[in-house]
Amino acid sequence: MLPAVPSQYRQIFLRQRPDGIPQPEHFGIRTVPMPELSEGQFLVRNHYLSVDPAMRGWVSAVGNYSTPVPLGAVMPSYASGEIVLSHHPDYEVGSRVMGMLGWQEFAVCNGSEIKRRIQDKDEPLSLSLGILGLNGFTAYFGLIDIGAPKDGDVVVVSTAAGAVGSAVGQIAKIKGCRVIGIAGGAEKVRWCKDIGFDDAVDYKRAGFSSQLAALCPNGVNVFFDNTCGAISDAVMPLLANGASVVVCGTASVSSWTPWPMGPRVERHLLVKRARMQGFLAMDYEHRYNEAVICLKNWLYKGRLKHREDILDGLEGAPGSIRDLYRGDNAGKRLIRLVA
Amino acid sequence: MLPAVPSQYRQIFLRQRPDGIPQPEHFGIRTVPMPELSEGQFLVRNHYLSVDPAMRGWVSAVGNYSTPVPLGAVMPSYASGEIVLSHHPDYEVGSRVMGMLGWQEFAVCNGSEIKRRIQDKDEPLSLSLGILGLNGFTAYFGLIDIGAPKDGDVVVVSTAAGAVGSAVGQIAKIKGCRVIGIAGGAEKVRWCKDIGFDDAVDYKRAGFSSQLAALCPNGVNVFFDNTCGAISDAVMPLLANGASVVVCGTASVSSWTPWPMGPRVERHLLVKRARMQGFLAMDYEHRYNEAVICLKNWLYKGRLKHREDILDGLEGAPGSIRDLYRGDNAGKRLIRLVA
Repeated sequence: MLPAVPSQYRQIFLRQRPDGIPQPEHFGIRTVPMPELSEGQFLVRNHYLSVDPAMRGWVSAVGNYSTPVPLGAVMPSYASGEIVLSHHPDYEVGSRVMGMLGWQEFAVCNGSEIKRRIQDKDEPLSLSLGILGLNGFTAYFGLIDIGAPKDGDVVVVSTAAGAVGSAVGQIAKIKGCRVIGIAGGAEKVRWCKDIGFDDAVDYKRAGFSSQLAALCPNGVNVFFDNTCGAISDAVMPLLANGASVVVCGTASVSSWTPWPMGPRVERHLLVKRARMQGFLAMDYEHRYNEAVICLKNWLYKGRLKHREDILDGLEGAPGSIRDLYRGDNAGKRLIRLVA
Repeated sequence: MLPAVPSQYRQIFLRQRPDGIPQPEHFGIRTVPMPELSEGQFLVRNHYLSVDPAMRGWVSAVGNYSTPVPLGAVMPSYASGEIVLSHHPDYEVGSRVMGMLGWQEFAVCNGSEIKRRIQDKDEPLSLSLGILGLNGFTAYFGLIDIGAPKDGDVVVVSTAAGAVGSAVGQIAKIKGCRVIGIAGGAEKVRWCKDIGFDDAVDYKRAGFSSQLAALCPNGVNVFFDNTCGAISDAVMPLLANGASVVVCGTASVSSWTPWPMGPRVERHLLVKRARMQGFLAMDYEHRYNEAVICLKNWLYKGRLKHREDILDGLEGAPGSIRDLYRGDNAGKRLIRLVA
């Protein structure tokens, strides 16, 4: 039986523009009336909302790959849910979708928001926001297309216990690489080793750099970086000839005003004939199916482990980006709206 | 008539290891006896010695792509000359070669030093050290393989009036790009425009950054950089989506101890899905012939102009690396030993 469509629902909106990492006070929560659907529209009841590091960039005023979220607008986010009402010929009531549905209980859609239809009835909806969603796609395309490791390569991954990093390391293992993770704290280091990393180092401990260097005596062939800070600076001098550096995120930078300084990378790139390259998973939308097939196969065979860190209730969303940047989460952070 | 082989000859050796840019006092000049040639050896009389920015790296103690030149050793360099004596079946007296022959009047060789044989009797020997040598190869492979510009791309080149930069800009024009040069001083800016750059800006003048930005309203698709300093920092924020940054040299860094800091590049690379990549022309030795054929064709058709800045006499060599870094040269700096 489908849930009834209520006459109103709640949503999280952007109340103030943050300078750095969005805090709970930058968001507000409001109740809005349920609109009438027009022809070509359908209504999704969100089950899970995603919390992603990239959302910080979406609300930032600094030039970015998207126009900043306007003040007062619903906070955009990936979410997954079920279609509960439809005036659209291609979207049936009862089918399940993932897309840019926003931090809200219901989303009125026209189809342009939808990134993936979840055909497999047995696939838990939460997966489409993590390992079978943007995190998995980021790991898959970033490592395989940009990092392009070869069998036997040494792959170093920062934020290695995170939703993306842990997938990167496991995919690199599947591809025949030796994988070293960099993570913060003993629990995260242990998790990296539990899921098959060859080794992992705790960047919060003294001697981190020399420990890392000792683990990579022949240099680093692929560095998958999510940090852009002291951790990256420790890895760059270890690059091997022909290395690739995948620029996936800049988690360690709390503000881009003033622009942060760091050791110049040019000499490393020159001497090691190395490549440093940024990418965005959203550019690979036309290849998401390829990634889903591979990732699901590895997942179901037990070769790809993942963790979810689920908060119940819309009220958990506003503080959740800050939590990510503090490293408070243990696995992919999701907000669950429908139990 | 071949020149007589003297009983002794002069060479420049490394006397002290420089911290930064090699100065005249880091080198010495000495006279050594002409050795007897063994079987498999041949003697080259050097006509031209090359002076290249990379030589600074060769004498540096900081980790590099080659072992540092030992104190007391002949200063390695590219040079071109004529074989005047041979006990080697593959190298005939009278034939002309270019290779790592060193800053000296004569070089005893076994063949491993030779990078190119100059078959064309009409080709001036100096060209094999410039536009038909390492400078030309650096421009050719760096732009075409690493920069990989497409027709209509905006290409920005630093040290644009130099031996490499001027070739990069002209090759980019041949490939259908819009080319903006960055050079120091009115004379160099004029030379860039004279050889067909669409525009050129003087980085020594106030307002340089905004002038450059105004010339690239749709961003920079390929940035060929030889500087690694304030000039690079002005270009990075202008990158277009999918841009490539060719890291060819680090001319603006006078010392790597302490390691220089600069604005972090990761965010530009991420937001613009851009690639920053180092390369060394010496890795392309197996493709030098391809480059010679193309470059010579363009050169003889008048599509590729170049300048030589020739000093006569071995005594000019020790101060010539410093001159390059001061920008004192107007074109490819060579030391001529045989008039």
